[in-house]
Amino acid sequence: MLSDKYILLNKIQYPADLKRLEVSQLPDLCKEIRQYIIEVVSNNPGHLGSSLGTVELTVALHYVFSLPKDKLVWDVGHQAYAHKILTGRRDAFVNNRKYHGISGFPKMSESEYDSFGAGHASISISAALGMATAAYLSGDTQRQHIAVIGDGALTGGEAFEGLNNSGIANANMLVVLNDNGMAIDQSVGAMSRYLLRITTSQTYNRFKNKAWNFFRGNLRRIGQNISNILKSSILKQSNLFESFGFRYFGPVDGHDVVHLVKVLEDIKRLKGPKLLHCITTKGKGLSMAESHQAVYHAPGKFDPVSGVILPAPVEREQREKYQTVFGKTICELAAENDKIVGITPAMLSGSSLDIMQEKFPDRVFDVGITEQHAVTFSAGLAVGGYLPFCAIYSTFLQRAYDQIIHDVALQKLPVIFCIDRAGLVGEDGATHHGLFDLAYLRCIPNMIVSSPLNECELRNLLHTAVQVRKPFAIRYPRGKGVQPDWASHPVQLLEVGKGRCLREGAEIALISIGPIGNHALEAATVLEREGIQVGVYDICFLKPLDEALLEEICQHYQYLITIENGTKVGGLGSAVAEFLTARHYSIPLHIMGVDDYFVEQGSVAELEAECGLDVESIQKAVRAVHKAL
Amino acid sequence: MLSDKYILLNKIQYPADLKRLEVSQLPDLCKEIRQYIIEVVSNNPGHLGSSLGTVELTVALHYVFSLPKDKLVWDVGHQAYAHKILTGRRDAFVNNRKYHGISGFPKMSESEYDSFGAGHASISISAALGMATAAYLSGDTQRQHIAVIGDGALTGGEAFEGLNNSGIANANMLVVLNDNGMAIDQSVGAMSRYLLRITTSQTYNRFKNKAWNFFRGNLRRIGQNISNILKSSILKQSNLFESFGFRYFGPVDGHDVVHLVKVLEDIKRLKGPKLLHCITTKGKGLSMAESHQAVYHAPGKFDPVSGVILPAPVEREQREKYQTVFGKTICELAAENDKIVGITPAMLSGSSLDIMQEKFPDRVFDVGITEQHAVTFSAGLAVGGYLPFCAIYSTFLQRAYDQIIHDVALQKLPVIFCIDRAGLVGEDGATHHGLFDLAYLRCIPNMIVSSPLNECELRNLLHTAVQVRKPFAIRYPRGKGVQPDWASHPVQLLEVGKGRCLREGAEIALISIGPIGNHALEAATVLEREGIQVGVYDICFLKPLDEALLEEICQHYQYLITIENGTKVGGLGSAVAEFLTARHYSIPLHIMGVDDYFVEQGSVAELEAECGLDVESIQKAVRAVHKAL
Repeated sequence: MLSDKYILLNKIQYPADLKRLEVSQLPDLCKEIRQYIIEVVSNNPGHLGSSLGTVELTVALHYVFSLPKDKLVWDVGHQAYAHKILTGRRDAFVNNRKYHGISGFPKMSESEYDSFGAGHASISISAALGMATAAYLSGDTQRQHIAVIGDGALTGGEAFEGLNNSGIANANMLVVLNDNGMAIDQSVGAMSRYLLRITTSQTYNRFKNKAWNFFRGNLRRIGQNISNILKSSILKQSNLFESFGFRYFGPVDGHDVVHLVKVLEDIKRLKGPKLLHCITTKGKGLSMAESHQAVYHAPGKFDPVSGVILPAPVEREQREKYQTVFGKTICELAAENDKIVGITPAMLSGSSLDIMQEKFPDRVFDVGITEQHAVTFSAGLAVGGYLPFCAIYSTFLQRAYDQIIHDVALQKLPVIFCIDRAGLVGEDGATHHGLFDLAYLRCIPNMIVSSPLNECELRNLLHTAVQVRKPFAIRYPRGKGVQPDWASHPVQLLEVGKGRCLREGAEIALISIGPIGNHALEAATVLEREGIQVGVYDICFLKPLDEALLEEICQHYQYLITIENGTKVGGLGSAVAEFLTARHYSIPLHIMGVDDYFVEQGSVAELEAECGLDVESIQKAVRAVHKAL
Repeated sequence: MLSDKYILLNKIQYPADLKRLEVSQLPDLCKEIRQYIIEVVSNNPGHLGSSLGTVELTVALHYVFSLPKDKLVWDVGHQAYAHKILTGRRDAFVNNRKYHGISGFPKMSESEYDSFGAGHASISISAALGMATAAYLSGDTQRQHIAVIGDGALTGGEAFEGLNNSGIANANMLVVLNDNGMAIDQSVGAMSRYLLRITTSQTYNRFKNKAWNFFRGNLRRIGQNISNILKSSILKQSNLFESFGFRYFGPVDGHDVVHLVKVLEDIKRLKGPKLLHCITTKGKGLSMAESHQAVYHAPGKFDPVSGVILPAPVEREQREKYQTVFGKTICELAAENDKIVGITPAMLSGSSLDIMQEKFPDRVFDVGITEQHAVTFSAGLAVGGYLPFCAIYSTFLQRAYDQIIHDVALQKLPVIFCIDRAGLVGEDGATHHGLFDLAYLRCIPNMIVSSPLNECELRNLLHTAVQVRKPFAIRYPRGKGVQPDWASHPVQLLEVGKGRCLREGAEIALISIGPIGNHALEAATVLEREGIQVGVYDICFLKPLDEALLEEICQHYQYLITIENGTKVGGLGSAVAEFLTARHYSIPLHIMGVDDYFVEQGSVAELEAECGLDVESIQKAVRAVHKAL
């Protein structure tokens, strides 16, 4: 049970309960859901803005359609809080995104109401079409298949692939275009201009005020002709979606729940592919979230009434995020070299490339949710003599895997991949951890693959990449660094493929890549007090591997332990294993990293402990080895 | 020098020579180029149909634009033979696709006229936009940037990402849509219907006959308004591209070179993004190629006059291709189980899924060049209770890497990946080898990764996958198998994660995955005569790895050699190295596979020799090890 103020929501656990309400009660229910989302998320941070924007849409969809019989696929999935609340997870929602709590995204294993898992963008149409085709093949002509996709996600190529294939399919498909003009930052590209043109045209305004009600009254009679009539008399601009074989409806006000119910009831009866264009406001109902949409995409803790974001707890030393170090450093580099450009597929503020954008607006390109294009576009810029820094989160870079191989590495173009959110990312969970990049990049010829130990090394790597002018990947984690004074250190150019000793030791060597090496150092300090002298090495470059350093290590130690914030399969551990077997060393190796499974959500500390990557786990591993030596 | 009959072509080595011709001579030149392509390709097989279709377009582009100053990006790149012939590679063209000859695709390191390398589809707009943006940033307002993309490649999501971003760019971009209604097989999706509608409408025919000449005459005066006039008076249907911010021109006859020159001269003067829609015929000029377009995409040897395809040399035993084994087996399975469906992104005949399509047309989906959609769509079908077999070539599966992870493996959906063209593929070269799949799939949790030794094992794996109902990858090579009688063997269900001993031995064990194991067997037979007893093991499953078998091997042998038709980095060799170090075995390991570089084109035999994967190389490796034992 929730508190007493949630009069309607307290009666609802499942969509069946919702269906017992009168349509006229739905606006009040929406208010309560919105209030509940604000209450919970203000204290337990999550994706606020998107979920506030889809409250009415969610209520209307569940009111009109019948899940889990009908299928509903949320694109990206961070807008599905109301959906979770209405499908058996109302009370569990207080543990949203928490360790052992519910996921912040739709997840098939969590609920039968989650028709498909999500986390990445632009997949909903393809997934729903698969289900719709399955129904069609089975002779089920009743089941409805709905994909809810934002205008941001619509820029992703797979969404178009899905539209193109749906348009000729003989299936019950409804695409709901949740058009709020935003990805995390503002939507970009010709498509967003096109949508804006539809929305702001006089035709639209006339339509919005009068037309729908008129047509609605006559709809059942008009039946199959409705889309043609709407098209020819009102919405000349609708041709883009109609070109793809969809019947286009809208735009409608996505916050008028009563109207939405009526519209969906009507559309439901029509066979074939349909698209409903809804205009919504990201952050709807919390005025500060409405006016600062990028900030309130995922604002952290805030005051639930005023919306004011609560200050982070004061630290003794002010540490910066790795992304900030990247953002500041690329500015520094861009000031010296006018060939440096920044590219990001819709991770402008998330990657801190906005810092450069402010200073060099012409040289920063937010290309929308288009990882593939972002990489090939970067390759094109490199052909044109520029030095592109392409900022993408590790998990999303998976989208551009072929482009890294085919358009960059094969062609030996100097594109610098600035891979943020590498390793365990915390509360976003299984869909967002960046655990595979070391493995999937290591096997690509011509690539340099690196990860810095700390802020200074990140800055040094970025400066080095400018000199080297080769395909160059730099991965760094979500969150803060360890060197509050990083900016005051002098820049040092690094030798590509050179690791270094952080701490001399005996018997056991810890070889790490990336900031997880700081855990190794901390563990070594504790172990020293116990009389165990552990050597600690920062390999820095996974590729090319510092074989000279490894030779040296093999000469001095009896046991090696590799540590990486990534899967154990195919990354640093494998590289060292390959080295040892190739050189016929019989020195034993223990690989520390994330086991071969999908890690769920939780704080980074909780997940590091689960995966055996925290300081204590490292100590334990060393003690066990030391005992056995 | 070519033979005397090539009167005009003999005068042309570079575009500058072409520009010295009169426009009126261009049709004759096109005839000669077409004749030359037919003459060479009839004897030295290559991509015939696409290149015959673009002869006039290529001549017109080089006549009007000035490469290498202007930039020309060929999408996919297999249609660029005329381009190669006109840019310094006329005589070298006889060695097209040959070992140490010229590549069958544009390649930056081969010629400064190849503005961008290619081989995969749908990248040209993004790459050209990168170059155009570079020019814009440099203040170069003159340089032109042309992307030539087929209607098949236009279905790929990245093409839309590129269009969407080009439409708002302030750059000299010309997209030439080479519309022949075909990918390798017929083009699919709503887009292809849309293009056909434009092309076949009465408006178009009227336009084609009269309108262009009229507009052309007035074009310079009309200037910037041309596109609006064309649009409003003639081409109502052009809105799709105009929605993306492009000025749309066409459709024009892509085989009327004189007209094309005029059109391009006019369009060239207009700033901003433009799209010219050309209608071409795949296989143009060779009547059998025109009437059997899928077959003549890459027909092998044929008679240059009649076009009749020459019979392959008769073999003593009639071996079948692995793809045929797949195609026949999936038919067999589909007949027993009506939940089995086949999906392929435009590799219908290439994967032999056309065999199933003929028998079960409703259960086979060619979704166009859309690897991402193909995988997520398969996932959706799996959610709907179907068992999708998704047939994609190894190199193109790279396009769907994120979808394999996010939409299939994470969600534990039973999608069976039938990965054709894995390993070295031969003449298609660097862009097409499937060398990375073992490495990039091995690091994905929940995946089963396998490769059959031969036809029987492929069939057994396919049958096994039906029972197992998990994410399941089966990779097999281009080309023929080794068991002419495979179909007469009984089907055996395999235990997942179980390898087997093919041949007992002593001292040295060869552990292989996939058909390359047949080379290992052959080597072992020869070595036995020399007194070297080599054990040969077929691991079959890279994941899960048969650790029990490896334990057994380690007990019996002093030296291990792994062999895989893929990169040495991250595949079977790495897996065994990880195993050995984790179990503290000091037994030495030698990894045989493809070194960490991009392999160029040549016959499979030539490339296997280069990469040390032929029988002789295996023998050599064993002898060296044996000597040192």
